[in-house]
Amino acid sequence: MGRYGKRADVIVHEDEPFNAETGLAALAEGSLTPTDAFYVRGHGAVPEVDPAAWRLRVHGLVERELDLSLTTLREAFRVRTETATLQCAGNRRAGLMAIRDVPSEAPWGPGATGTATWTGVALADVLAVAGPLREAAHVGFEGADLCPTERFGGSIRLDKACRPEVLLAWAMNGEPLPPIHGAPLRVVVPGYIGARSVKWLERIEVRSTPWTGYFQHVAYRLLPQDGTPGPGEGMPLGVVALNADVLSPADGETVTAGAVEVRGYAFAGGERHVARVDVSIDGATTWSQAELLEDLGQWAWRHWRITVDLAPGEHEILVRAWDSSAATQPEDEAALWNPKGYVNNARPRVRVRAAAE
Amino acid sequence: MGRYGKRADVIVHEDEPFNAETGLAALAEGSLTPTDAFYVRGHGAVPEVDPAAWRLRVHGLVERELDLSLTTLREAFRVRTETATLQCAGNRRAGLMAIRDVPSEAPWGPGATGTATWTGVALADVLAVAGPLREAAHVGFEGADLCPTERFGGSIRLDKACRPEVLLAWAMNGEPLPPIHGAPLRVVVPGYIGARSVKWLERIEVRSTPWTGYFQHVAYRLLPQDGTPGPGEGMPLGVVALNADVLSPADGETVTAGAVEVRGYAFAGGERHVARVDVSIDGATTWSQAELLEDLGQWAWRHWRITVDLAPGEHEILVRAWDSSAATQPEDEAALWNPKGYVNNARPRVRVRAAAE
Repeated sequence: MGRYGKRADVIVHEDEPFNAETGLAALAEGSLTPTDAFYVRGHGAVPEVDPAAWRLRVHGLVERELDLSLTTLREAFRVRTETATLQCAGNRRAGLMAIRDVPSEAPWGPGATGTATWTGVALADVLAVAGPLREAAHVGFEGADLCPTERFGGSIRLDKACRPEVLLAWAMNGEPLPPIHGAPLRVVVPGYIGARSVKWLERIEVRSTPWTGYFQHVAYRLLPQDGTPGPGEGMPLGVVALNADVLSPADGETVTAGAVEVRGYAFAGGERHVARVDVSIDGATTWSQAELLEDLGQWAWRHWRITVDLAPGEHEILVRAWDSSAATQPEDEAALWNPKGYVNNARPRVRVRAAAE
Repeated sequence: MGRYGKRADVIVHEDEPFNAETGLAALAEGSLTPTDAFYVRGHGAVPEVDPAAWRLRVHGLVERELDLSLTTLREAFRVRTETATLQCAGNRRAGLMAIRDVPSEAPWGPGATGTATWTGVALADVLAVAGPLREAAHVGFEGADLCPTERFGGSIRLDKACRPEVLLAWAMNGEPLPPIHGAPLRVVVPGYIGARSVKWLERIEVRSTPWTGYFQHVAYRLLPQDGTPGPGEGMPLGVVALNADVLSPADGETVTAGAVEVRGYAFAGGERHVARVDVSIDGATTWSQAELLEDLGQWAWRHWRITVDLAPGEHEILVRAWDSSAATQPEDEAALWNPKGYVNNARPRVRVRAAAE
């Protein structure tokens, strides 16, 4: 935990490879997540990369292969900054595991998500120099991390790769990217599951087909609830689903009866925006609309807050977010269970006890 | 109905302005909807436009105003073709009206949607010549149709307007655009509610704010279930929600017991694609996966089919589509009711009677 910083407000799931989620208090602090509390999902040891010797290779279905140093990236391309929310596909898995076990996967809670300001260059600008060929349809990324024998990787479609929000980033919240978050360079794919934002990037491959490596072809897929599907089966994940959660009060917390402020986030993925967040304290009979807080732009979540009046006793706070297509979160967590425990975006329920003063 | 063609398989909701939806048999024929059965949603009389005298004005927050003839549009820009599904925000309203009335709105059934191949130029290419200024954020469209005193119009965000799939189209399914569908030129905004695909286009206004006309600022908004909101309130609609429907057999139909083919469509909007369609004939206890039929590209629905075995008696066929973010259709139509009856994307239920041979 030393290399991650001194924050107490993180929950470590595994030391090696290091995996930790952000505590609710750190998430509730503000719309931007502090770097030293930002969740980490790693599949291998943090690789030792010498930034001076590091090169980025761009190859595959391109007119010209590129072999770029960090200096060239910084000096030859327009520097861009984007505020974007990352969310692990396994965020809120613990809620699904309470229904039925998910073997060999960590019980991530609500903190496998966070929002940061990322600085780097647009992948689109680099691809424009390489010149994708006519057959190009996907852009693959490969990191330097061995997990355990295969390097971590994944791909996105070329049309997403050519959008200005997809960055090759060397800075996070205005500071150099920490090693644990992918220094010297990582991909940031706003609106997609965190697994596509490949860290310790060393290779970009322009392809005609999606990535065939383990972390896209086998893992990070939504599998049928029953059966034992093979590689390439199930539904590959990519674009994130509408999600929202309560950041304060915490589930099981005791609060003082009377006016209680409820805070949380909602994230619609970017192509769609958060249109509304409703809160119910009477079992979904009546709903009140929460106030949406600062707008950090298309690719970031919206924090929200509402003050509810809680009489002494037990209460359940229920939340549902709506996106700009009028889609809302699914009600039933049980219907969302899947063998790898991905994409729990059910309406959050937080139980609190209101104690008389 | 004469000007619409001779097809019997359309359901006319209103003669003047002409409003009609496509019958299920025409939708089930194939993935492309026949032009002479394609749904029509009009708010005013079809305007008489002389194509030779017609001009398209592009103005507002641009470096240079444009005043374009049809000939210039056809000759000065690259011609593009896109297969795209259009869907009226009021599609499937009848299902919501069965729960609670929607005054002053027509009871559209499942046929206010269709897919065609559109040919024209990219709006992006025209905007590139006009040169949006720094403050530009929205692109408004105005038609020639008076509805009844205001011209029909609406806007989309500049980033969507600059995407290659948004067309200014003069042809539909390889033939000149019929007058009822917006000749000589209409907008086609794939993945958005049909109301943004403005017909009889005459004016494009690059703006800093969304369209303030009736058809975006007052109508085509998702209003709270209770209360009487004023203009600009509620949630503006734009991106379409994941939807799917059964095209065959029809609700209430009698089929021959035994192997019955069920056909339908699913549409995820384009940014997300249809990942899976499940069908249940036992009240959502077990689900079988339907076969996805031809892929017409990112902006078109997927037709699907499955053969189910129906014993003699009454049956309910229940369908749920999934998109690539692992989002699925809402279960409860009642929860979707809203004062204008928009965006019914609940899981479809079709009741059939299987008769012994």
